Amino acid sequence: MHIDHIGIAVGDIKKATETYSKILNASPTKTEVVESEKVETVFFQTGESKVELLGATDPDSVIAKYVDKKGEGLHHVAFEVDDIHAELDRLREEGFTILNEKPKNGADNKLVAFVHPKNNHGVLVELCQTKK
Amino acid sequence: MHIDHIGIAVGDIKKATETYSKILNASPTKTEVVESEKVETVFFQTGESKVELLGATDPDSVIAKYVDKKGEGLHHVAFEVDDIHAELDRLREEGFTILNEKPKNGADNKLVAFVHPKNNHGVLVELCQTKK
Repeated sequence: MHIDHIGIAVGDIKKATETYSKILNASPTKTEVVESEKVETVFFQTGESKVELLGATDPDSVIAKYVDKKGEGLHHVAFEVDDIHAELDRLREEGFTILNEKPKNGADNKLVAFVHPKNNHGVLVELCQTKK
Repeated sequence: MHIDHIGIAVGDIKKATETYSKILNASPTKTEVVESEKVETVFFQTGESKVELLGATDPDSVIAKYVDKKGEGLHHVAFEVDDIHAELDRLREEGFTILNEKPKNGADNKLVAFVHPKNNHGVLVELCQTKK
């Protein structure tokens, strides 16, 4: 298990991309719109992990609601696992609340699922697995 | 540059250590009290990056104040750099506000400095460099 990425919710993804290009002294490695989530994502590779900027493409997006309510900032941390189904079973057994009954398609060719922040000291934890 | 760690502010570090041992399916690799910051830190190694739990050892600690105000959750992301002085000069030149005039001693045998969240779309960014 390792950190696949950290997700940062932003209001203006164009401006945020400029900002993080400066902070990380690097260009984005990938951009992708996830229609089902109504978000645009911009990735920066930093070592084995990525920084993912998340901007809403619609006022109805969970990211738009998050930014309205809590402001911009760190939104989630994602851990890459070898077998997402086995990990979700293990965490359910440990008493964690999984937000997705089954893993769903996420950005970056991954299967993803989220663990409720209430179990994790306020942190939205994503598990992800590269599709085989 | 790579993600050295993500920092999670927690209320009860003992409970949080149990929780993250389950999530990450691993034991903590290091615990350390940083007296100057009035925090206890617990690290988990996940790939090349760490998860750092931060608990206040004093009600006057910045972490106690953070948890009181914002609740538990993702607190900062730290990027390891080769030359922290050069990186801070570069970011100052780019117009970022650095919270520390000079890098200070942090946990894990590092020199650390923070970039103000107002410049970074709400994210407290730490730069760190292993002491040579």
